[in-house]
Amino acid sequence: MSAVPALDLERLSGVAQRLFDAVHAATFDGVGITRASYGEGEELAMAIIERHAREAGLVAERDAGQNLILRLADELPGKPILIGSHLDSVPQGGNFDGLAGVVAGLLVLAHYRETGTAPPQPVRVLALRGEESAWFGKAYMGSLGLLGKLSQDDLDLKHRRTGTTLRGAFEALGMPVDRIARGEALMDVTGIAAYLELHIEQGPAMVARGWPVAVVTGIRGNIRHARVLAKGEAGHSGAVPRWLRKDAVLAVAELLSRLDEHWRVLQQMGMDLVMTCGMVSTNPESHAISVIPGEVGFSFEVRSQSRETLEQFYKLMRGECEDIAAERGVEFQFDRRLYAEPAEMDAAWIDRLTAAGRSAGLEIETIASGAGHDAAVFANAGVPCGMVFIRNDHGSHNPHEAMALADFMLGVDVLHRALQAGG
Amino acid sequence: MSAVPALDLERLSGVAQRLFDAVHAATFDGVGITRASYGEGEELAMAIIERHAREAGLVAERDAGQNLILRLADELPGKPILIGSHLDSVPQGGNFDGLAGVVAGLLVLAHYRETGTAPPQPVRVLALRGEESAWFGKAYMGSLGLLGKLSQDDLDLKHRRTGTTLRGAFEALGMPVDRIARGEALMDVTGIAAYLELHIEQGPAMVARGWPVAVVTGIRGNIRHARVLAKGEAGHSGAVPRWLRKDAVLAVAELLSRLDEHWRVLQQMGMDLVMTCGMVSTNPESHAISVIPGEVGFSFEVRSQSRETLEQFYKLMRGECEDIAAERGVEFQFDRRLYAEPAEMDAAWIDRLTAAGRSAGLEIETIASGAGHDAAVFANAGVPCGMVFIRNDHGSHNPHEAMALADFMLGVDVLHRALQAGG
Repeated sequence: MSAVPALDLERLSGVAQRLFDAVHAATFDGVGITRASYGEGEELAMAIIERHAREAGLVAERDAGQNLILRLADELPGKPILIGSHLDSVPQGGNFDGLAGVVAGLLVLAHYRETGTAPPQPVRVLALRGEESAWFGKAYMGSLGLLGKLSQDDLDLKHRRTGTTLRGAFEALGMPVDRIARGEALMDVTGIAAYLELHIEQGPAMVARGWPVAVVTGIRGNIRHARVLAKGEAGHSGAVPRWLRKDAVLAVAELLSRLDEHWRVLQQMGMDLVMTCGMVSTNPESHAISVIPGEVGFSFEVRSQSRETLEQFYKLMRGECEDIAAERGVEFQFDRRLYAEPAEMDAAWIDRLTAAGRSAGLEIETIASGAGHDAAVFANAGVPCGMVFIRNDHGSHNPHEAMALADFMLGVDVLHRALQAGG
Repeated sequence: MSAVPALDLERLSGVAQRLFDAVHAATFDGVGITRASYGEGEELAMAIIERHAREAGLVAERDAGQNLILRLADELPGKPILIGSHLDSVPQGGNFDGLAGVVAGLLVLAHYRETGTAPPQPVRVLALRGEESAWFGKAYMGSLGLLGKLSQDDLDLKHRRTGTTLRGAFEALGMPVDRIARGEALMDVTGIAAYLELHIEQGPAMVARGWPVAVVTGIRGNIRHARVLAKGEAGHSGAVPRWLRKDAVLAVAELLSRLDEHWRVLQQMGMDLVMTCGMVSTNPESHAISVIPGEVGFSFEVRSQSRETLEQFYKLMRGECEDIAAERGVEFQFDRRLYAEPAEMDAAWIDRLTAAGRSAGLEIETIASGAGHDAAVFANAGVPCGMVFIRNDHGSHNPHEAMALADFMLGVDVLHRALQAGG
């Protein structure tokens, strides 16, 4: 293995910069980056990556899902390791969310090609389409489609702007819609050794902690209600005494305060957990300063890497609702419970990526991914997965994403070292 | 005293029923009762009361504020006791809010007239206009105008539907707008012995406790903010860890839960207090299930009979905001603080009304008025005031007000007995 030279980080960072710049220029919308899923910007980005890969001497092909696959021309036999991420973006989003992972894979393959060396196992880059839920209201369309996990209902989803269905978008690209609709997998997951993904962190934890690169332990799942309705009783705010009130706002305030305290304690006990009530409102038709609020609607979301924690916290929430309902004479009405499964990264890959970081002299730490990634789809299909996060300021899904190129190159180096460690 | 016979409750209840029915028929809008302040329904009601009073042999006159004054033709010398209430209603409101007090006064005067007896002191009925804030956004316009307490800004207020200013409405009725605008009193309060008001209870306390009649101890004032803005920081609901969140919803939930607990304790300590957050909302432009709420607007209202309690609770609220702001990295921004002064009923009149009730065989209790009344304006101008509440189901300001005529007549009897007790 010592035959494989280390990455020339300085030179490759120039290549990376040019690629990021080229895709940025092609998909900048005046405010941010727009690469619609199965749309124009996504295709423009894919064409740039494809062209560059061919110029670098790599083989570039489209798979049945119209995703882009890059590989070395003289690929070794054996199950390939995929280095994947997505090329689409939210409207007016940032340049690095998704693209960074594809460029990382491309740089690793280009390094093997340029140095005339080979990885211990075959390595391919998978540049996926359709990861963002912003366009069709559904995330991971590219990876779910490959694994035969899109439903008829999913195919009927409509584009937020054009109204085109996902089925229509697939047909326009010449994808095998009938096979997808039947739930047929377009890729044999048993033929994949692993799926690795490099991605910018979408939260502020790594910036706050000063970590340029971190290894992801798992991807949080969630349980959600889009709308819970707390129903109390409206009344005169001056004339109804405390003991006769059924105040929906105070009931929801107590619920959220209790849950916030449970969250604090459970997290201190070591559980992975975040809770959010992103939307709350009294009834705009009837609310007033001097009317006891008879009705409050709110959303609920709990995320965790652990299925058990999700279910436990959800049960806790429902239990607190029952308590508060009884104490305050308020009723809680729940809409459909939505569930997204958490995913665990492969323990061996976590170790391997961590060791790779340490071999590069980094004090590398592990972190949970709060946001979802295609890696969750592969992991839940039984593929051993690993993820590397790159420090990134200002979150994602906005034009202010700020990933330093030096941090990115450290992440590419970690990927390369981890691949070599398999030899 | 013994020369004045007791009220003939059965006969007078028939008169009351006919008056309530006549005013209802004239001002029913298809859904509820509409008697706009300084508008048509108010004038229709006043004309019915005026005509009936004259038919009953009473003197009926309009004062400078175009309110209706009823008195006995052979009035005794001395400072009169006013029995007052208002004739306007909210849109689609109920028939008894205001009207009941005017009818009560009329029945008492009619009794003196019919029995050829006289009260120990002169008694007049004051049927006020413009008590409801629903029309011009300002309450107590009739009584404030009489006492020279309307400002130029108040006169510029516009009718919610027609856009006519309050000044314009006054001019149309031939009222002396220049004197009112100069803050000149149209009535000499030093010439009034007392102001008594009978009113339906607007909360459910008397129904809950089984009290047909109660004596009011005071009228709650309030401190309000129409809008407080809690500003935190929006972020990815999965990717931002607890310790880096600035969640505006959880900050407001904690604030309200703390205040609710303070309220509970302070009330147990004997303080008169109600607190309401009638309106709350995340930003509908930007909120989402999966976005940490960066912004929540809410209204705040505290009501109490005590100025000290109002100020103490307000200070407590501001202090909790500062605490929570520091702990949670959230900022609270306050709009203009609105203040309505509380009013105390006269201690001697509270005793006299209570004794009058007991003399009628009622187990009479005292109660605070959470809602505002014209009595508060007279009390704060230095006039000794007393109020009698009548049990009423379903609150007020809606067509479902439910005052039993028998309860109303008990209240009229209490008023009459209290007047006689002054002899």
